[in-house]
This record gives sequence, structure tokens and C-alpha cells, in this order.
Amino acid sequence: DMAVRHYTLDFNLSTAVECASVVPGLLSIFHEQELAETIHDTNGHGYLATFVGKNGRFVDNSHFSVCVSQLLNSLEKKLKVILNGNIARTKKLPPLVRGAKVDRYWPTADGRLVEYDIDKVVYEEDSPYQNIKILHSKQYGNILVLDGDVNLAESDYAYTEAITGSGKENYAGKEVLILGGGDGGILAELVKHKPKMITMVEISFMVIDGCKTHMRKTCGNILDSLRGDCYQILIEDCVPLLKKYVREGRTFDYVINDLTAIPISTSPEEDSTWEFLRLILDLSIRVLHPKGKYFTQGNSVNLTEALSLYEEQLGKLSCPVDFRKQVVCVPSYLEQWVFYTAWKK
Amino acid sequence: DMAVRHYTLDFNLSTAVECASVVPGLLSIFHEQELAETIHDTNGHGYLATFVGKNGRFVDNSHFSVCVSQLLNSLEKKLKVILNGNIARTKKLPPLVRGAKVDRYWPTADGRLVEYDIDKVVYEEDSPYQNIKILHSKQYGNILVLDGDVNLAESDYAYTEAITGSGKENYAGKEVLILGGGDGGILAELVKHKPKMITMVEISFMVIDGCKTHMRKTCGNILDSLRGDCYQILIEDCVPLLKKYVREGRTFDYVINDLTAIPISTSPEEDSTWEFLRLILDLSIRVLHPKGKYFTQGNSVNLTEALSLYEEQLGKLSCPVDFRKQVVCVPSYLEQWVFYTAWKK
Repeated sequence: DMAVRHYTLDFNLSTAVECASVVPGLLSIFHEQELAETIHDTNGHGYLATFVGKNGRFVDNSHFSVCVSQLLNSLEKKLKVILNGNIARTKKLPPLVRGAKVDRYWPTADGRLVEYDIDKVVYEEDSPYQNIKILHSKQYGNILVLDGDVNLAESDYAYTEAITGSGKENYAGKEVLILGGGDGGILAELVKHKPKMITMVEISFMVIDGCKTHMRKTCGNILDSLRGDCYQILIEDCVPLLKKYVREGRTFDYVINDLTAIPISTSPEEDSTWEFLRLILDLSIRVLHPKGKYFTQGNSVNLTEALSLYEEQLGKLSCPVDFRKQVVCVPSYLEQWVFYTAWKK
Repeated sequence: DMAVRHYTLDFNLSTAVECASVVPGLLSIFHEQELAETIHDTNGHGYLATFVGKNGRFVDNSHFSVCVSQLLNSLEKKLKVILNGNIARTKKLPPLVRGAKVDRYWPTADGRLVEYDIDKVVYEEDSPYQNIKILHSKQYGNILVLDGDVNLAESDYAYTEAITGSGKENYAGKEVLILGGGDGGILAELVKHKPKMITMVEISFMVIDGCKTHMRKTCGNILDSLRGDCYQILIEDCVPLLKKYVREGRTFDYVINDLTAIPISTSPEEDSTWEFLRLILDLSIRVLHPKGKYFTQGNSVNLTEALSLYEEQLGKLSCPVDFRKQVVCVPSYLEQWVFYTAWKK
């Protein structure tokens, strides 16, 4: 694996120092490692030097990454001597690994840089709808990643629990509609409760196919068949189906919206993400029994603007609703996540 | 804040390309931004150029970080044109912020780079025992960081729940010993259960003092007084106290070890971390009632070697014990954590 490791050593000074008095003392460390130096003109705005190893490269072999660590340790020690008492803080971060075969960086929804312990790409396919990856993490098990977004890991029962009502609902004998849910987690959970019938509508058979094989801690054997005693899985776009249900006057005791945060649809209504989202919401509430409940995931708790906009949509539906929200820790998300429950007023 | 933002754009190629045919096409993008270029000799091992902005700097003002984003976008676009069909993957990561006033990077115990949404240093003091920080996170509330290790956030009731037996214990009328626990989370939880007496032994009054003010979602008002109807807080090293309890033949129904992963002690026994850890363990089990339970946190689930070593120690105690472990998601840890329960055979 020809990955590049990007190491950093940062230090903060309690008072300003002259480059001229500090830099020469540090250069010997680089020269000992036979690194060639280039000084860049910064017009007095600091000191920028580039060092290149012998043979012209920095990435060599595993031996070299030991050398870089030693280099940073020497640098840190020497800095402490030269700037005696003047260093407020030094910090060495784990190296940023660039260009590796297996990508370990999947930023959070609120835009933070996080590294996962991913060691293998288990599955990768492009469907007509999205890029589908299943990645293996030592601590989270397999992780489903759709178009670069962490969707669900095998460790994430907390997600399934939250989006099915936190164990407080009685599904026995009830009619349930699941929108999306291709990883099978919700379906596998709800069949245990002996509902009358669960209809799950997933647009992508490839997601189901990948999860059936690689996310078994999430879905068990429920995806092995598209039909069971109390469930059916329809491979189609949920929008036309919801419209058909509205026309027929069909209702469900529970509607669970497990669609990805960024909507996917082949229908022409998709003018904007928010309009599409409101369309799904509106249709979902229309097929909801007057005493039924609508469950869905929201967003990162830090994306307050997006959450407000979502709540605004809830006020614009053809049928007035009340709602409550809950903040849940989904292990593999590395951020707190908001879930919504809505019901007809 | 004079922080430096370190942006990256990585791309992987499906087949090798000649620098000579690609690089000149990209240079114009940098030149348009009036960046001066230095080429480094890499002896044929690739292409390394350093660009410095006009006025000699890259960090200028908020306007400039917009420029860098635009630069990366232009680069990405141009790369796609020049390397048409040859790019297997491109990835832009959130920038690595270096030298900022508030440090947002607190690597996990298993050595991964993670960025927190920390926006403020609420408290920082050096005690004779450790560096104490309380940092504010938008989603986790205040976070106690001891010697650079994330200890507990106000969001982390899951930690308190796990280390007190996951709600399955009956503390009413019981004698409890807490080792450490300066954030007050365990104490605040257990007093609700009307125990006979809780003795908490925390070495650092400064931790208690900081948490009393800034971690109130964790400790409530329990740290406002060192003594209550059913609890007492002793500010001292737990080792001599445990030895005294052993001499007196005193036992507890529950011993909860909430000491930091890296032990702190003024006693001379601290030859090595593992010996010290075994000493605490041995003394704790010796003061445990024959039917009592010992609860403690272990480590990151990924540190399998450290966990094995810990379990080895459990087999070397003066009194034989059985144990079980549990993996728990503590929200602010950004990694799965192992908790142990031990009891006398």
C-alpha cells in the first residue's frame, strides 16, 4: 500500500521569538537525516522550508515512518531546549494517511474530520441510484456507506431502537410501512413483535443484496427472502406507491421513514431536496392512521439550521401534525443524532 | 485566532500517468492565484512543488480560506479534464486546523485522529497530579480532559450506567466504595438509590472543584458538599486508605474503580503501571464482601493486547475472582469501551 503518512508537530509559544535565533538550531536535526532543504520566500511572514529525503522521497518503507517519528521526537526535544520555558503547548497528532487503498476518513455530517478503524472494503458497487460500500471496522463491524455517508453499522442497534420508538410501541397485529430500510435492521427488529403486516419499500435491490451477505448482525436472515409470514419487501420507488396508497385510502398504524438523508428518486417532483422531503413527509402523513405514528431520523444535532428547516416543513403539511424529537448516540456516527416522532393532531 | 488551516485534495489514478503531461496543465491554476512555485528534486520519484502566496503567506484572512477552497475546486475540475476517465477516486477532507487557540483534536485511545466540536476552554489548571481541562462541546456539553485523555462529558450517562452495573443492581442499604470518581457522576447516581453509605476517595480536590462548577449535568449538586446523609468524599490517595481497610477487615458490597486509565499515586509502589494496577485491584478485591461486586472501566475495545494483559492481572490476585465484560458506547469517546465486573469465586 503506497499510502502517504502526513505527520504534524505543532507548538504554541507563550511569547514571540526570532526565527533567526531558533531555526538554525533545528536545522541540524534534518541534516542528520540527510534531508535536503529548500527555503521559501515568505516576505518576513515566518519561515517556510521544505525538506526532501535522500533518493528524493519521503515515503520509502515502513522503516522510514519510524524515522519520521524519531525526527519529530528529536525536533520536540530540541525545541524544548532552544525555546526553554517559552513553549505553551506542543501537540503531535496521529498521521493523516493519504492515498491509502482503504479510506479511513468519513467526515461527520457537521463537517468534522474523523478517522475510522476501517481495515477492509467488503463490498463496493455502483447502482443506478448511488455508490454502495460496505466497509469493515474492527469495533463497529461492517458499515454501510451510501454515496460517502455512513448509513449504519452492525454495532448500531441504537439507530434501529430509536427509529422504531425506543421500545415503547406495541407492534403486535399492526400495519407497518417502512420507506427505505434496505439494510434490513428495522424489518428484522419488527417481525419479532408479530405485526399484522410490514410493507418495506426499498428502491435499490443492490443495497439489499449487499446487506443480506455482509450486514447479517443487522438483518439476520430477514433479507434472504422478499416475502415472509408478516412482511413483504417491494423493490420500487416509494413516491408512486405512496400516491397509490393515498388514492386507495389505505392507512398504516406506523410509517417509518428510513430513507437516506439526501433523497433518491426517479420521480420528476425532485426539484429541490426540501421540496422532495416535504412531498415524502406529506404523503407519509396522509397514509398514516389517525392514531398512528410516524418515525424518522433527522440529522446531526449540530446542524441546527437544517433541523429548523425540517421542523418548518412539518408545519407545512396538508394535515396538521405534532412532533417530538430525541437525541441519540448511534455508535458508528461519531456524532449525536436527532430522531423525530410525528402524529396527526 | 491565527490558526493555520491545512487542506488536502487526494486523488487515486486507475493507471499510471506521466508527470510531464499532467503537471504543466495544473500549474496555471496556481499561477492565476499568484502563487510562487518551488520545485523540489525528487530524483524521479514523483513531483513535489511548494507554492507560496503573494506577500509570502498562505494564512491571510478569512477571505483566503475561501480562496483555498476555490483553488481546490478548480484543481479537482482541471484534474478531471486532464486525467479524463483515469481518476479512480478524489477526496477532499475537512481542513486540519493547526495552532488554534482551542485544540479540537483529542485522539482516541486506539490512536485515531478525531476532531471534536470544541469551541471553548472552560477551565484549565495544573494540579500536583495532572493537567485538568474542561472543554465545551456543542453536542457533548462540557468534557473533562485529564492529561490529554477524554475522561467524561456531560452527555456520558452511558459511562455512569455501565460502571454502576447497568441498572441491574440494588444499592439500597449497601456499603459502597468509589475509587476516583472526581467528576461526581457515579456518586450523584448512587445516592438516588438510598445506599447505607458511599465512601468516595479522590486524590485531587481540583478535579472536584472544576467539575462542581462546570460539569453540573453530570454531578448535579452532589459535589457542593463533601459530606451528605449517605456519603462522604475523602480527598486522599486511595492506596493507603485501602491498606487501612484491609488491616481493619472492613468490607464493601460494591467497589467501583473509576480511576483514570493511567494511574496516579504518590505511593512508592508505583514501579510500573501494571504492577500498580494489580496492587489497586488486589486491595479492592480484598475489601470486597464475599458476595460483593467490583466494577471498573477497562479500555478501548480495539486495544486487545492491553485488555488481555488486564485480564491476566485478574488471574494473579491473592483472592481468586471471576469476571465478565461488556462493550459500551460512551458518546464522547468516539470509540467502543470495555467495562468489567469482577466478584470473588
